Amino acid sequence: MVKQEGDLVCLSLDEVHGLASKGLTQNGASSEQARSVADTITSAERDGCKSHGLFRLPGYIGSLKSGKITGDAVPVLSELAPAVVRVDAANGFSSLPLEIGITALAEKAREQGIAALAVNNSYHFAALWPEAERLAELGLVGFAFVTAKSYVAPAGGIKPLYGTNPMAFAWPREGKPPIVFDQASSASARGEIMIHERDGKPLPERWAIDKEGNPTNDPTKALAGAQLPFGGYKGGSIALMVELLAGALIGDMFSFEATANDTRDGGPPKRGEFLMAIDPSKCVSGGGFSQLAHAETLFGEILGQEGTRLPSDRRYESRKITPTEGITIPKSLYDECVELAG
Amino acid sequence: MVKQEGDLVCLSLDEVHGLASKGLTQNGASSEQARSVADTITSAERDGCKSHGLFRLPGYIGSLKSGKITGDAVPVLSELAPAVVRVDAANGFSSLPLEIGITALAEKAREQGIAALAVNNSYHFAALWPEAERLAELGLVGFAFVTAKSYVAPAGGIKPLYGTNPMAFAWPREGKPPIVFDQASSASARGEIMIHERDGKPLPERWAIDKEGNPTNDPTKALAGAQLPFGGYKGGSIALMVELLAGALIGDMFSFEATANDTRDGGPPKRGEFLMAIDPSKCVSGGGFSQLAHAETLFGEILGQEGTRLPSDRRYESRKITPTEGITIPKSLYDECVELAG
Repeated sequence: MVKQEGDLVCLSLDEVHGLASKGLTQNGASSEQARSVADTITSAERDGCKSHGLFRLPGYIGSLKSGKITGDAVPVLSELAPAVVRVDAANGFSSLPLEIGITALAEKAREQGIAALAVNNSYHFAALWPEAERLAELGLVGFAFVTAKSYVAPAGGIKPLYGTNPMAFAWPREGKPPIVFDQASSASARGEIMIHERDGKPLPERWAIDKEGNPTNDPTKALAGAQLPFGGYKGGSIALMVELLAGALIGDMFSFEATANDTRDGGPPKRGEFLMAIDPSKCVSGGGFSQLAHAETLFGEILGQEGTRLPSDRRYESRKITPTEGITIPKSLYDECVELAG
Repeated sequence: MVKQEGDLVCLSLDEVHGLASKGLTQNGASSEQARSVADTITSAERDGCKSHGLFRLPGYIGSLKSGKITGDAVPVLSELAPAVVRVDAANGFSSLPLEIGITALAEKAREQGIAALAVNNSYHFAALWPEAERLAELGLVGFAFVTAKSYVAPAGGIKPLYGTNPMAFAWPREGKPPIVFDQASSASARGEIMIHERDGKPLPERWAIDKEGNPTNDPTKALAGAQLPFGGYKGGSIALMVELLAGALIGDMFSFEATANDTRDGGPPKRGEFLMAIDPSKCVSGGGFSQLAHAETLFGEILGQEGTRLPSDRRYESRKITPTEGITIPKSLYDECVELAG
């Protein structure tokens, strides 16, 4: 019996994994695909990223039920160049192809100094930090870029074109979890605007424009209009870069094409992802210089200023607690997940 | 005799090059170093980037006269890994090491699919777009990252730590100049704040904080305080990434170290630069997919919205005119350059 606290249900991380895995296999995922997606969902719950945890399970399963996603897809790894590998996700979830691809990418980066990974034809429901973080846990500098549904206007424009297009970057540390940031190219996540709408709260400035292109604080008008890049045209440049890297460069779709191609079942559209990894030990001559120790001096300077924190610190705080104390989800979500797990 | 128009002097691009080159060689630069820096200065004037054109020549020459920079430095190219090359600028200007490094980087990227270049011990006075653009002119996707003097507070902090840390990205086009962006991680350039101070104009919101960390519109207080990253903490993450790539990763200094190490003669401090290049033809399987043609559909969507433009379009407009019509500089600057050219 799981513990209940009012409208919340308490679960251990093992229970999270079991629930996710069972729900996926019951609905057509292969055991390997289900295990990999359950790992992704569990790591989100572990780190307090509720928006990418069990909250997403009904969406994953809905896309299996609708037939949009191939639950037993077998990802295919290939080498495109000495320093470039590719995984064809074969119309499946992104978790398993990323596992396979990252192992190959890390090997290439160690051999060549720098390497790239293209993931094609995948459905990415998750946050972007897990893949960057995994590269850094392997001692590499990691980058990841993925497109999304068209919600964001290009700089100067008023109609949705770009996705919220996150980029993630990770830096390895000795004896500590990596420095990782994972940030949308838009001023806000789509979900944040929806939460403002639900709660009847006005949006902060510069998040969005209405259908006519006027700045708006009204979340309903914003959802019908377009989101804005973060920091004006500079965030727009980052969004454009993400489109080019995760779209054209690897022969995959832009956000606007992926959106048009989608079945509109509420889940993400099929699209591409681009990753890069660098081996720090291959970027200095001699090798007598300790780059990771040097980086710690910068982190010390940052934290020496009151009010600062390092990217990902909030996730790592959560990670200290959840393996022993477990996590909570709303009872309604728990009941839905149990029902989906049959 | 050069043409004069009131307080302005009109020069052809050849005259710009000659003036820069002569000024540098007269003050201790080798002919190869002088030619390369003069190329950089001339390309800035050609593209209407006055802040990186002849305006900088007195600074370049001042750093030669003070002995800070080695005018006849001979850059040394080496291979650190199959996909990583390095140029030691040997205490010289960055233009010539970049020329040498980019040729090697492009060759590596074509062989391996992706490659990286570390430039160490160099003085970078220029904009960052030239190196990214050159990679794209060679048919590659280009990235460049460089640190700067400590002027920018980390997210949540109030004291200068990061440089204005630009990153540049370039995408190749067929039959057209590349798409290039080159943007500081700070909300504004240092020089823009100085121009506001000179003109007695208040700063826009979110550019800077005063010494106590309060938001300020007063340019004098801003210069004594700290600049802010663009777009809040997200721009701060980009600034941090630039520090790690162009600093620790390649065994070079962070902005705060380079600043402390500098002679304070007004020019930039000695530091590192990091570049990456990707060969698009190595990032797809089969090769039947035309990535560059595909990218044009995205650019068409952007330009299909009124009010938009592509990054670098303003530079390219200038480039259509200046080779025939020449450029203008203030007579005072011209006289100073002529005097320096001895």
